Amino acid sequence: MEKLQYAPFSCGLDAGFWQKLSEKKLNEYALDETPKVIRGFYFNGDLANLSPRIVLDYTGFDRQFKIPPRCFLSIGTLYLKNTLDNFKECDKKLIIDQVAEQIWQDIKDLKAVEDPSLLSRFVLLSFADLKKYHYYYWFAFPALIYDVFLLSKPTSLKDSLSTEQIENLVKNYDQFQAQFTSFHGYFVISSLEDDLAVIELQHTDTLLAAGKKVTFVFCDPCTLENHPGWPLRNFLVLIAKKWGNKMESVNVLCFRDRSRDGVRDISHSLLLNIKLEKLDDQVCPKCVGWEKNERQKLGPRMVNLSSTMDPTRLCESAVDLNLKLMRWRLLPDLNLEKIGSTKCLLLGSGTLGCNVARCLMGWGVRNITFVDNSRVSYSNPVRQSLFVFEDCLNGGKPKAEAAADSMKTIFPGVNSLGLSLTIPMPGHSITESALKQTERDAQLLEELIENHDAVFLLMDTRESRWLPTLVAAAKQKIVINAALGFDTFLVLRHGFKSTEVKKSEFKFGGVISGENLGCYFCNDVVAPGDSTRDRTLDQQCTVTRPGISMMGAALAVELLVSILQHPLGAKAPADTSASDDSMFTVKDTECSLGIVPHQIRGFLSKFSNVLPACQAFDKCTACSEKVMESYKQEGFQFLLKVFNEPSYLENLTGLTAMHQQTVDAEVWDMSDDEELTSIDLTSVDLSSMETKTIEKP
Amino acid sequence: MEKLQYAPFSCGLDAGFWQKLSEKKLNEYALDETPKVIRGFYFNGDLANLSPRIVLDYTGFDRQFKIPPRCFLSIGTLYLKNTLDNFKECDKKLIIDQVAEQIWQDIKDLKAVEDPSLLSRFVLLSFADLKKYHYYYWFAFPALIYDVFLLSKPTSLKDSLSTEQIENLVKNYDQFQAQFTSFHGYFVISSLEDDLAVIELQHTDTLLAAGKKVTFVFCDPCTLENHPGWPLRNFLVLIAKKWGNKMESVNVLCFRDRSRDGVRDISHSLLLNIKLEKLDDQVCPKCVGWEKNERQKLGPRMVNLSSTMDPTRLCESAVDLNLKLMRWRLLPDLNLEKIGSTKCLLLGSGTLGCNVARCLMGWGVRNITFVDNSRVSYSNPVRQSLFVFEDCLNGGKPKAEAAADSMKTIFPGVNSLGLSLTIPMPGHSITESALKQTERDAQLLEELIENHDAVFLLMDTRESRWLPTLVAAAKQKIVINAALGFDTFLVLRHGFKSTEVKKSEFKFGGVISGENLGCYFCNDVVAPGDSTRDRTLDQQCTVTRPGISMMGAALAVELLVSILQHPLGAKAPADTSASDDSMFTVKDTECSLGIVPHQIRGFLSKFSNVLPACQAFDKCTACSEKVMESYKQEGFQFLLKVFNEPSYLENLTGLTAMHQQTVDAEVWDMSDDEELTSIDLTSVDLSSMETKTIEKP
Repeated sequence: MEKLQYAPFSCGLDAGFWQKLSEKKLNEYALDETPKVIRGFYFNGDLANLSPRIVLDYTGFDRQFKIPPRCFLSIGTLYLKNTLDNFKECDKKLIIDQVAEQIWQDIKDLKAVEDPSLLSRFVLLSFADLKKYHYYYWFAFPALIYDVFLLSKPTSLKDSLSTEQIENLVKNYDQFQAQFTSFHGYFVISSLEDDLAVIELQHTDTLLAAGKKVTFVFCDPCTLENHPGWPLRNFLVLIAKKWGNKMESVNVLCFRDRSRDGVRDISHSLLLNIKLEKLDDQVCPKCVGWEKNERQKLGPRMVNLSSTMDPTRLCESAVDLNLKLMRWRLLPDLNLEKIGSTKCLLLGSGTLGCNVARCLMGWGVRNITFVDNSRVSYSNPVRQSLFVFEDCLNGGKPKAEAAADSMKTIFPGVNSLGLSLTIPMPGHSITESALKQTERDAQLLEELIENHDAVFLLMDTRESRWLPTLVAAAKQKIVINAALGFDTFLVLRHGFKSTEVKKSEFKFGGVISGENLGCYFCNDVVAPGDSTRDRTLDQQCTVTRPGISMMGAALAVELLVSILQHPLGAKAPADTSASDDSMFTVKDTECSLGIVPHQIRGFLSKFSNVLPACQAFDKCTACSEKVMESYKQEGFQFLLKVFNEPSYLENLTGLTAMHQQTVDAEVWDMSDDEELTSIDLTSVDLSSMETKTIEKP
Repeated sequence: MEKLQYAPFSCGLDAGFWQKLSEKKLNEYALDETPKVIRGFYFNGDLANLSPRIVLDYTGFDRQFKIPPRCFLSIGTLYLKNTLDNFKECDKKLIIDQVAEQIWQDIKDLKAVEDPSLLSRFVLLSFADLKKYHYYYWFAFPALIYDVFLLSKPTSLKDSLSTEQIENLVKNYDQFQAQFTSFHGYFVISSLEDDLAVIELQHTDTLLAAGKKVTFVFCDPCTLENHPGWPLRNFLVLIAKKWGNKMESVNVLCFRDRSRDGVRDISHSLLLNIKLEKLDDQVCPKCVGWEKNERQKLGPRMVNLSSTMDPTRLCESAVDLNLKLMRWRLLPDLNLEKIGSTKCLLLGSGTLGCNVARCLMGWGVRNITFVDNSRVSYSNPVRQSLFVFEDCLNGGKPKAEAAADSMKTIFPGVNSLGLSLTIPMPGHSITESALKQTERDAQLLEELIENHDAVFLLMDTRESRWLPTLVAAAKQKIVINAALGFDTFLVLRHGFKSTEVKKSEFKFGGVISGENLGCYFCNDVVAPGDSTRDRTLDQQCTVTRPGISMMGAALAVELLVSILQHPLGAKAPADTSASDDSMFTVKDTECSLGIVPHQIRGFLSKFSNVLPACQAFDKCTACSEKVMESYKQEGFQFLLKVFNEPSYLENLTGLTAMHQQTVDAEVWDMSDDEELTSIDLTSVDLSSMETKTIEKP
């Protein structure tokens, strides 16, 4: 008698499966190593010479998993390890023994009679190196060991039945399996020759009681002529356990069901006559099933998907990876989607603009628009990190466009646009001939601000910040302002103008709500004017320590991210108590990333920052109610007056009157107390933290 | 009678002149607008149709100015303005009148008789936009107005003299002018026909006293047939002033002296017979001389040299420009040459390496070597600022080489090299087969450190910093170490091991000398070991806020620059009083850029830095005397023991013994005071400022 031998399953792992697994690991499992339920399927219709496979694809993680037509479910357990060492060192025997015990239990309880899919279980042990797209894995289809012998040589269906009988079997089978929403591929037939009945496993006893001869059938993924596939192994254990006492041998049909050239064919199905052996009821049989690797040894396999994947997609997921890992351990609440979907407008594409864009990209921001009106010059690339030497040739590429193009060469997934635009400025009067163009420029700027969520002011003059400050305040956009000195920087968020501003809530040593914070111009008691005239070379150029721009840009972006993470967003309050005290207190005003200051003023000569906060100034030339109202009511006509008339803003806001009062006060002081005369009262009152910053181009 | 008219000078400005002017402005004049003496020359040998030119080239700024052969000196005054507005608005009449007054004075004093070059003066008013290589200028060759008339039609020499007579004149002229080290082109001849004598202007009276007929000669840059060049104008004023009372008319030879096809020719020189007019002795005549521009109007010209210059050179000078401007106003003492010539070795070419390299380049550092052992992967470019998407394809370029190549695309003038090298590490034991390679790697690292001035440690593991720390300490190199956490960074300079270490100078609240500062490992009480085994994905990857790397890298470079500017260099002392106190005190230990801290620890959640300083630890596993001695004596054999034996370093340094003491102390504490048992004494004693940093790749 010949001992029955089976063709083992191998594992057919789809690239989509690994992709989905990567996603799950990154977004859901994180460091969780507990076993997960996944689902695969096998097929009994393969052409000859294909080895039996459990197929796993991207649907395998789905609870609503749908088995493809004419395929059969196999339920699996995924052991996804955090490290390669964990993968190597985990106890494979224990893993497979646990599944064997479960199968054995389902056989003993006869649950497997009702739901024979419980017999088709698999295990996938894996480690995913998501950085390299290297997937290490080891597959097992656990089979309880139960040796049996064939009573006769296997025969094929076509040798035993007539064509009509085979056709009848196909018809009956099709009707039978059509009843199930999901058919698991184990069943029984009463007679092969005539009086054919196809029934569920659980009704076998009825047939046996009626004295009928039964044939146990399983859908067989194997294509070998003399051997059945792996699913028969646990099926035979079930048969022996349930019916072994009633029969000494058993007929098994290895049901194979293929189409060739459109013609259905089951005639190659195998018929086996097997002698049943006695089974020890009490002890779970030993178990085998780990798949052999390419070298036909028991061992794991590795698949490197990096070369087969679309590089652009690979790049996008790699970038996501680094960000999502933050949520694994450090910041489970981090709202990356909010950051990633924030549309950022960068006004100015110089050292700050380039570094801000890079840092935003690092945070996963996908929509970045650059605005600048100059061209890349030879001194730019060494400090402006999106440009290269070639951009300077032939007069230089327009900066904004060059920056946007460069972003795409770094990360093809970014949506980045560059626009050459000159921002109209107070004190730069508009000639008649330039009127139309200026109106178009102002309008374009308004549209740009409207279509973005956050506006970065990164320009090289004070006055070019005025119009965007006003427009962004009117449109309630987040504004992050950065300016550089030689070895100092200023990064501040503008107050987020609310429709219902709560006034005068300022308390000394307290906090200021985000709605009441000052803007870049709130410290000023003069309106911005033309500062570009008559500047010497060192005043025109980036005369800054090179590190200053990197620091300022990084902090500008990190400040935005902190705002976005704060429950109140741009309305997040800022602490007025600058500096170190706050090092040791945690306030409930903080977001998960920490505090959200109003201003960060850095001093490289001391390697230190201070964090002043100040209130909006009711005579501010950019964000005060009077200016906002005039802009909303008069639109471009108002702007035109500001551009053309140097004193217009100061008169409107009441600064002119205030100056007069100050002069009066100084006159009074002079007669009263000579020591006071050297103090400029306006600067003491209003701009205590102001440092002289040389603007950089 | 025909009024004498002259061909004016134009200005022949060589590109080399502008280049030299740019250099002078940048490095020497800075904001100084006072007039500068420059020198030009003119030539009397031009071929027909060339207009008379004062040529200014790069030698014009030279005090040791050498006039080219057969050319004549013209002394000029350069008015180089700081801004285009200053250029436009400066008083041109005043400028030319001042020169006229000077010429008039030299004529009245008869100084011009002795040194007739005083008659050939010019003015160059200019503004150089060094950012764009746009040079605005206006040239004047001031001529005192003195109208005279010709008594006869001008004749050429060949119409008046025979060939022999002309040859005789040439011979006599050549002999005459050969006496002068610098010949200025004004002289007198006694008779043209025979008895020829060529003499200096100052000897004219002798000839006249002898009753000889004199001809005044000037070297004439003009090539017109009927008109003399501009130098005759002031010469005639001199003649009228000095000899006008003795003669009513004067013969003038406009001496032209060219070679055509190798043949000397003066026969086209012009002979003029001029009626002298009475000159008012007391009043300086009015003056003309501003050059007309391309549109034949009185007005400035502009030359744009950016397109004619070699782009690589343009780029280099543009980069220098930004740096040199720092010295104009802010930091006259800044030693840019020292910074620029510092050779930097960057160990690690990831986020820190890329940003450090960019910042160094911004400071003008020209020699940068990258070391890394990995390849560019898809997640890198968005954070590692020297890489682009394309570098990731086909398995990725080697990082160090890709970084070096990228540097050259940014700035062709950089000397940047990338080396793939794996740094041997303690705890990563060396197999027999890897022994040779490890020895070569260690040797290459030693050579690299030897050949550089500053070493940046920017790697992703703690233990890879050990060997470079040791080697750099042994070779007395500056070491800047930077490491990143999720929202923290550490930047520190290693102590600069002196041959004669002054020990135990530490005073609480005082300063620690640069020689006695700790290294990265001085806070540790365990030797570095293999930390790469068994790391989960988030521990392997750059899980940091993207701004952290920019800040850390910027500060690492700025710390190096501050060290280089300090009079004591790497021996600069560090203040132990971290934080804000130092904000308001200026110590004489500071350099011109400010303080030179030992460590900068940044906390982004608080937007603040702290600046601890700590002393070298006598049991340090990397820089203590015992370790240095063993390395110096045993070399690679010592390293091998460290790589292979985990406890070797701890035994050598005495840490093992210290641990035992600590354990003993704890045992004693436990019996004595239960509250103390929860405190880890080693950490309290030694690593008060240590924060957990997750190393990034």
